[in-house]
Amino acid sequence: METTKAYAAQQVGKQSVAFRRPPVIVGAAAVVGPMEGQGPLGGTFDHIYPDLMAGQDSFEKAEREMMTNACFIAMQKAGVTPDQIDFFLAGDLLDQIISSSFTAQKVGIPFLGIYGACSTCAQGLALGAMLIDGGFARRVLVACSSHNASAERQYRYPVEYGGQRKPYAQWTVTGAGAAVLASPDLGEGPRITHATLGKVLDLGIKDPYNQGAAMAPAAVDTIRQHLLDLGRQPQDYDRIATGDLARFGQQMAIELLARDAGLDLGDRYVDCGVLIYDNEKQDVHSGGSGCGCSATVTYGHFLQEMAAGNLHRLLLVATGALLSPTSFQQGENIPAVAHGVVIEG
Amino acid sequence: METTKAYAAQQVGKQSVAFRRPPVIVGAAAVVGPMEGQGPLGGTFDHIYPDLMAGQDSFEKAEREMMTNACFIAMQKAGVTPDQIDFFLAGDLLDQIISSSFTAQKVGIPFLGIYGACSTCAQGLALGAMLIDGGFARRVLVACSSHNASAERQYRYPVEYGGQRKPYAQWTVTGAGAAVLASPDLGEGPRITHATLGKVLDLGIKDPYNQGAAMAPAAVDTIRQHLLDLGRQPQDYDRIATGDLARFGQQMAIELLARDAGLDLGDRYVDCGVLIYDNEKQDVHSGGSGCGCSATVTYGHFLQEMAAGNLHRLLLVATGALLSPTSFQQGENIPAVAHGVVIEG
Repeated sequence: METTKAYAAQQVGKQSVAFRRPPVIVGAAAVVGPMEGQGPLGGTFDHIYPDLMAGQDSFEKAEREMMTNACFIAMQKAGVTPDQIDFFLAGDLLDQIISSSFTAQKVGIPFLGIYGACSTCAQGLALGAMLIDGGFARRVLVACSSHNASAERQYRYPVEYGGQRKPYAQWTVTGAGAAVLASPDLGEGPRITHATLGKVLDLGIKDPYNQGAAMAPAAVDTIRQHLLDLGRQPQDYDRIATGDLARFGQQMAIELLARDAGLDLGDRYVDCGVLIYDNEKQDVHSGGSGCGCSATVTYGHFLQEMAAGNLHRLLLVATGALLSPTSFQQGENIPAVAHGVVIEG
Repeated sequence: METTKAYAAQQVGKQSVAFRRPPVIVGAAAVVGPMEGQGPLGGTFDHIYPDLMAGQDSFEKAEREMMTNACFIAMQKAGVTPDQIDFFLAGDLLDQIISSSFTAQKVGIPFLGIYGACSTCAQGLALGAMLIDGGFARRVLVACSSHNASAERQYRYPVEYGGQRKPYAQWTVTGAGAAVLASPDLGEGPRITHATLGKVLDLGIKDPYNQGAAMAPAAVDTIRQHLLDLGRQPQDYDRIATGDLARFGQQMAIELLARDAGLDLGDRYVDCGVLIYDNEKQDVHSGGSGCGCSATVTYGHFLQEMAAGNLHRLLLVATGALLSPTSFQQGENIPAVAHGVVIEG
């Protein structure tokens, strides 16, 4: 019988885990809508849809078409079929995560629905890696998605109303990302070495347009805890990326990191919501947001950078604003969470 | 380096896992609303709220008060504080699982949101057990909830409209269940020995009142696959319980089990949605449903039966209808999933 200590050997510090045999991303895909395709990372995506409908008759069906497509491209790149995959972990922003559930029906893999709002990408990678490294699966498919029009009409106003947006508002990314994770004996690719799971924080933000402010403290808390748990410094990473704080949220995170944690991440700190659009030429206000933001930037841009040898060790901290239309209409604050995963090229 | 086979040693058959050192339920709690308290299982619950508001000013806040209360009672019974728990896994029926996210903020434990509709209870137990047995956690808190009034107004009509219900309609249970799972060196209690994760099935049901029919095929598929994976017979279990098929759904499951799988579960087959209400005296039509249904019946009734020595091995198959108001208003079918866990007293 193993000792107690050995049994929990993969725990590191208070909120982090280390993988004994780091699971590998053996195939990944990012598909996006037209605006994301026209942005500076357009060349890194596997597929760009020419319009928001993606050949479907509703925005919701378009979103799930994108997630399904990302899943099948990721499996194709991994050289596997659905019957070779043990679990499908997916989540999205739509009520009752219907993009994920309907995709799960199409891929036909045992399904575990997850929800972490825009932190879902990192949550899925962390959980999927735990299931593989724990010996419960040999391959796991993870996916998440968001769609500008389905999100806007659910969370705020139907896009047809043409409502004015505040300068700190973000633009929900239309896109989906998927990755096949596998135990390291089953293939090559970037490795998931650590994960840090975040606590839910509520700093009193109530404005559903100001999600960057709601999420920045959660990102700072998870980055701080991650470095503390692993005994690392920011310079141990080539890149530290938050998921979708966008320009206002990233600036707030920089200030909070300095003030509350004495940390200066320097140039290595980027935000997927800033990277995905051209803030000068594209009318996206503060920048991108949504589950699809960190997923498409990670599976498109970052993995391409790793393949090119320009990026070796990435800390991805995806942030989620855990509001619902009901909760903010009832006048409640917006709680937020951030989950981190370390990906090594 | 371990061999490939040893590395995935906990996989059993196509969709099941077996735990090497089965995690233990060291504390659990079930809290319910007034109707559930007046039902035949009233004496098995930890707390009965005298009204649906639970001292709050909205149904949504009442639901999260119930989940929070169940969490703290479960931790108290386990003799642990939140800082001794590594992860909080929770889900519920409300859009963006706000009951769970807001509870996560109160308990202050790193949070992994999950969504499997009414299958969430089994999904949480399965995932929590994997995180512990995989060596990533020593204790995990799992929870789920549902509330009749918050669910009715979200999924169907505001209860104040007094809409007529069809005889096969179900009554969403008001209640929450929570359990502290721990590695077996940390306490005593019922053990989680196996889990079977379900695929999402769509048999063409479109009526949001007829969830029993949507979910019954998923339950049958998971029960059949579970027995196949483990090489077991129904008589290897003292009780096989579906989560919330209610009377019509259970009858359908019995017929499908016989027709499609040649299985007769006999008297050992019960449904939590049938058990929780008195179908003669309480006006609940087909019976109970909701995440809170299987959770409160499991953490109340079944665990009490185990403690009394009347129940030794339970297969709990919690079923979830993965619709959203948007998906059914857009005329789509209701996909369903069922996850199974084996609990041994």
